[in-house]
Amino acid sequence: MTELENLSINTIRLLSADAVQKANSGHPGMPMGAAAMAYALWTKHLNFDPSDPDWPNRDRFILSAGHGSMLLYSLLYLTGYDLTLDDIKNFRQPDSKTPGHPESHLTKGVETTTGPLGQGFANGVGFAIAQKYLAARYNKPGFNLFDYNIYAIVSDGDLMEGISSEAASIAGHLKLGNLIYLYDDNHISIEGNTNITFTEDTEKRFESFGWHVQKVEDGNDPEKVSEAIQNALKEKDKPSIIKVRTHIAFGSPNKVDTPGAHGSPLGDEELRLTKINLGWDPDKSFYVPDDVLKFYRSAGDKGKSKQVEWNKLFSEYKNKFPELADEYIDFCEDKFPEGWTDALPLFELKDGEVATRSASGKTINAIAKFFPTMIGGSADLEPSNDTFIKGEKSFQPGDYDGRNLHFGVREHSMGAELNGIALTKPMIPYGATFLIFSEYMRAPIRLAAIMGIRTIFIFTHDSIALGEDGTTHQPVEQLISLRSIPNLIVIRPADANETAQAWRVALEHKTGPVTIILTRQKLPVIDQSKFAKASNLEKGAYILSDCEDKPQLIFIATGSEVQLAIAAQEKLKIQNIKARVVSMPSWELFEKQDYDYREKVLPKDVKKRISIEAGSTLGWHKYITDEGIAIGLDEFGKSAPGDWLMKEYGFTVEEVIQKALGFFKL
Amino acid sequence: MTELENLSINTIRLLSADAVQKANSGHPGMPMGAAAMAYALWTKHLNFDPSDPDWPNRDRFILSAGHGSMLLYSLLYLTGYDLTLDDIKNFRQPDSKTPGHPESHLTKGVETTTGPLGQGFANGVGFAIAQKYLAARYNKPGFNLFDYNIYAIVSDGDLMEGISSEAASIAGHLKLGNLIYLYDDNHISIEGNTNITFTEDTEKRFESFGWHVQKVEDGNDPEKVSEAIQNALKEKDKPSIIKVRTHIAFGSPNKVDTPGAHGSPLGDEELRLTKINLGWDPDKSFYVPDDVLKFYRSAGDKGKSKQVEWNKLFSEYKNKFPELADEYIDFCEDKFPEGWTDALPLFELKDGEVATRSASGKTINAIAKFFPTMIGGSADLEPSNDTFIKGEKSFQPGDYDGRNLHFGVREHSMGAELNGIALTKPMIPYGATFLIFSEYMRAPIRLAAIMGIRTIFIFTHDSIALGEDGTTHQPVEQLISLRSIPNLIVIRPADANETAQAWRVALEHKTGPVTIILTRQKLPVIDQSKFAKASNLEKGAYILSDCEDKPQLIFIATGSEVQLAIAAQEKLKIQNIKARVVSMPSWELFEKQDYDYREKVLPKDVKKRISIEAGSTLGWHKYITDEGIAIGLDEFGKSAPGDWLMKEYGFTVEEVIQKALGFFKL
Repeated sequence: MTELENLSINTIRLLSADAVQKANSGHPGMPMGAAAMAYALWTKHLNFDPSDPDWPNRDRFILSAGHGSMLLYSLLYLTGYDLTLDDIKNFRQPDSKTPGHPESHLTKGVETTTGPLGQGFANGVGFAIAQKYLAARYNKPGFNLFDYNIYAIVSDGDLMEGISSEAASIAGHLKLGNLIYLYDDNHISIEGNTNITFTEDTEKRFESFGWHVQKVEDGNDPEKVSEAIQNALKEKDKPSIIKVRTHIAFGSPNKVDTPGAHGSPLGDEELRLTKINLGWDPDKSFYVPDDVLKFYRSAGDKGKSKQVEWNKLFSEYKNKFPELADEYIDFCEDKFPEGWTDALPLFELKDGEVATRSASGKTINAIAKFFPTMIGGSADLEPSNDTFIKGEKSFQPGDYDGRNLHFGVREHSMGAELNGIALTKPMIPYGATFLIFSEYMRAPIRLAAIMGIRTIFIFTHDSIALGEDGTTHQPVEQLISLRSIPNLIVIRPADANETAQAWRVALEHKTGPVTIILTRQKLPVIDQSKFAKASNLEKGAYILSDCEDKPQLIFIATGSEVQLAIAAQEKLKIQNIKARVVSMPSWELFEKQDYDYREKVLPKDVKKRISIEAGSTLGWHKYITDEGIAIGLDEFGKSAPGDWLMKEYGFTVEEVIQKALGFFKL
Repeated sequence: MTELENLSINTIRLLSADAVQKANSGHPGMPMGAAAMAYALWTKHLNFDPSDPDWPNRDRFILSAGHGSMLLYSLLYLTGYDLTLDDIKNFRQPDSKTPGHPESHLTKGVETTTGPLGQGFANGVGFAIAQKYLAARYNKPGFNLFDYNIYAIVSDGDLMEGISSEAASIAGHLKLGNLIYLYDDNHISIEGNTNITFTEDTEKRFESFGWHVQKVEDGNDPEKVSEAIQNALKEKDKPSIIKVRTHIAFGSPNKVDTPGAHGSPLGDEELRLTKINLGWDPDKSFYVPDDVLKFYRSAGDKGKSKQVEWNKLFSEYKNKFPELADEYIDFCEDKFPEGWTDALPLFELKDGEVATRSASGKTINAIAKFFPTMIGGSADLEPSNDTFIKGEKSFQPGDYDGRNLHFGVREHSMGAELNGIALTKPMIPYGATFLIFSEYMRAPIRLAAIMGIRTIFIFTHDSIALGEDGTTHQPVEQLISLRSIPNLIVIRPADANETAQAWRVALEHKTGPVTIILTRQKLPVIDQSKFAKASNLEKGAYILSDCEDKPQLIFIATGSEVQLAIAAQEKLKIQNIKARVVSMPSWELFEKQDYDYREKVLPKDVKKRISIEAGSTLGWHKYITDEGIAIGLDEFGKSAPGDWLMKEYGFTVEEVIQKALGFFKL
């Protein structure tokens, strides 16, 4: 190792340790241990251009071990991204660009938000799927527009989490040779040496998943790491993992290889000793030797020239393949083809009853041709979720232009893979499972909401009406628990036409994820000539069917239960009770409307209100007032035919009417 | 294979297919494919006594592939459990004992509720941990009270789910030789052949986890399956998995080896053809040949004699080790030692500020000696969760009497393992992680609630006040989403003494799981000589500090925010505004109180109410009335010091007072 290399690596170590010390909070050990391998990757292999962090053909780097964020911030600053030494000094402080864990929407150069372990690992598989798809769709002979790779640093915590096994299995199956992961094997987790819980043979595990596996015994030797990366780059048909033996808090004389250095600052005295130990001036903090900075910046500049070359290549491509180039550019800018909304299917009374899952399937198929970068699938429930794009191939090795993804029975990694795809412009991913199994993928749904990315989640079998599969499969609390996630739009359409509109909203919503909640059972199509138009769905709630004059009573219903409200309204009319029916497919969209609109739909002075939803009543009190009644389900379901269950739990017109009449008796 | 064996296996196949056909819903393929191996296990190896399904030393059998429930119901009926042929005919019908997926609280002989894939796999690891602990604590030379094994049938779906990798890794690490899993390798999942997503080398994967791996090529040969089980029984230091090549819907001439037989009835005609193909009378349904029934019942009887022997052994044990025997019996009956509640720590003002996580740690340590079958730990956050029982060993190979569990960074399997432990009488398990990572383990929390078992979940770092770790680590919506789970008690104590009381409630609550939500930051101890006693926590909400006369205003607060309410009350008093402070650690416990009590605490006619909780405001409207104000957080947090964040997001006394004064201005 040259002296400059040594200095360059130690600069990362000490910048990280200084920042954690100043913040008096954070994880110094990981960056100190992983500095050498990160150095090797970033200065010898990674293609990136700090001046154009969104350059489409850049390699992606993911710090799956997000707690080691200072490693990434050090590299971003040193190589010349839009991050200053002051930002580093502001680590973990209010409104800084250097939060405790890397957040992609806050800091340029951070490809994905990490911290919850295993997510970054699985995001990477999504990035890799997206790269393969883009290459298959856009690359042409002589025009390898997309030939980038996806790198990550993953930790023992990442590998312990089940999601990484899920993602590794599908990555091996799909032969994603564009994935290269460095495993920071430092033997230490929070409770102590990893040998108290983690003695599996990780190399063998990854071999079993079909990965190319290498081992570097000395993680402080950048040459060895670099050689291994070279070998990994040669392996085109397998994802690669390189197990690198590192030492947490390397350089710290008393804390190296100890859990004490995992999640706490070294302490002033130990930091001082560390600087002395590494040949640093112990009185200097945040010190970056000039030639070190120069060296890292030149590594950044190498990328710049590649970016310039690529832009030239893309210009030529645009001349030769103008349609494809324009398509790519337009979708990157979210310019959708004209006429796509006209292609949304229109369902009519004569179509008979339609399950909203089927309506969703029809919608996907109607619009697929307008959205060539929309790909998706299911966690092994495609025939039930109705998510297949007909006439398109499955995404498989050799068929990377396939638009139908098969995730396997792996909901958690599906969620994180979808996020990785969504983070790759101009991809639009969707993924499906039963609503109940949204429970297996809460973390990636939340992360999509934090990142503000357009991941579309399709959840079918949305209530006890799914029937015989029983308690374990029947959602009860899933609607409220999804609605509680900030920046997530939850839509539960009332019929086939609202479903088509839900898809329109989902595709047009650019600042966060959308989940569409669908029935297993068939539902009547609501007559748009008689009732309000389904396009009102975009407002979250709307007057579907009004009474003459001021309503005495308002029904607020979602999804399959809107039918009950319509029927009850009609029967109450005979008894001269004036009821309004509000269809409320999305609380979040409704909350975005102005006061006047909300007051128009739900006037304050109409306090007799009944909400109807086959799920937990929690949260409905906000909309029904103190006098209102929430018809819902606050217990688990059971196994029986769906229509029997709906009756058993009180989801009948008779029951709704009885509740309504209760308002008018004394 | 003898003719009787063949008949016996086909009886399972056709009972299953008949039941699914009659229900017109269900999964016939799995039971038909796995019938032979289940036959081998249940008639040649499994120790069970149908007349005493709770016999403590029985082997446990888990059908992790819960959708194949008819396999289990067939076996329970045939071997003589409390399940009749009519129950089988009632498959998936209202209030039957044979729901779509097996539910342990409905059907004797069902050890755990399965259906969500991977859960049963990981429950089994919990069962195995519990067995090892019971053996280590109670077995004595000559008295092998507990030497049972845990068997499961697991499917490709189970193995694809990440939770099974987590559980397999820890099982291998812990050398749980009492685990024997049969892998129903039928090559078919819902979307088609498993080779579209699942081409990993499963044998190698399990070897990498330290398992003993065998393969049976012909899953229809019970002898081969039996031999493999024999080998597995000999292997004492490794969990075993036997990969058994089966054929989904074996016997069905047109649906064998097809996904069509996975989740749909065979159809009348195909069922008829299947019966003919298997040499059955096609006109008979639910037919059980007499000698087949006799044969299965005699297998059940074999277990009976073992149960009798065991009871005799236990009587002798009771003579020789009366204290241990009584302890075991008492805890099985939930009779806790006298005086244990007196041992709960009492925190006083002089203790200074105490984080509720620390108070929890002190409580665990104070009561541990009273609860010798209480074991627990954390998913690699023990120093942060404060869950270590001092003076007790870690549960490790060779130290199976250790009471401190190390789950590794594996929250999901931790949850399911805890459930497996809780299902083993008289074990009382607890497990901990950060509140945000409850998201990784939603499914097992929900299943504990469905089963009604006492699993105790400890979630610390309960709000943005955790500080610098930032957005990805800060809970916002987790409280409401846990509260939405039916039959789960959620407790967020306001101080150290409420924390001790939360533990009391958790241990005394026998019909479902409890989760205790704790702070990272220190909190003042609430003076019990001045304010109401913390033991009121058991009522869910109580008047902590009242005003003279009728309140003009009620503060309702939980956890760390109760402090704000107390301070605001005091300052408002100076302005002659009479405010009441209600501490509301648990919505669910409050809802269990009678009307009068609830009215006393929150009188209907006091409509000026303010809730204060550093989390989503969803759901609070139920308690604050239409006029009330919910102070909470409906957006994501950020990375900064905790006190700065609390101020930034409005959790200050000043802000609370300002909101309160708003009620009294015009």
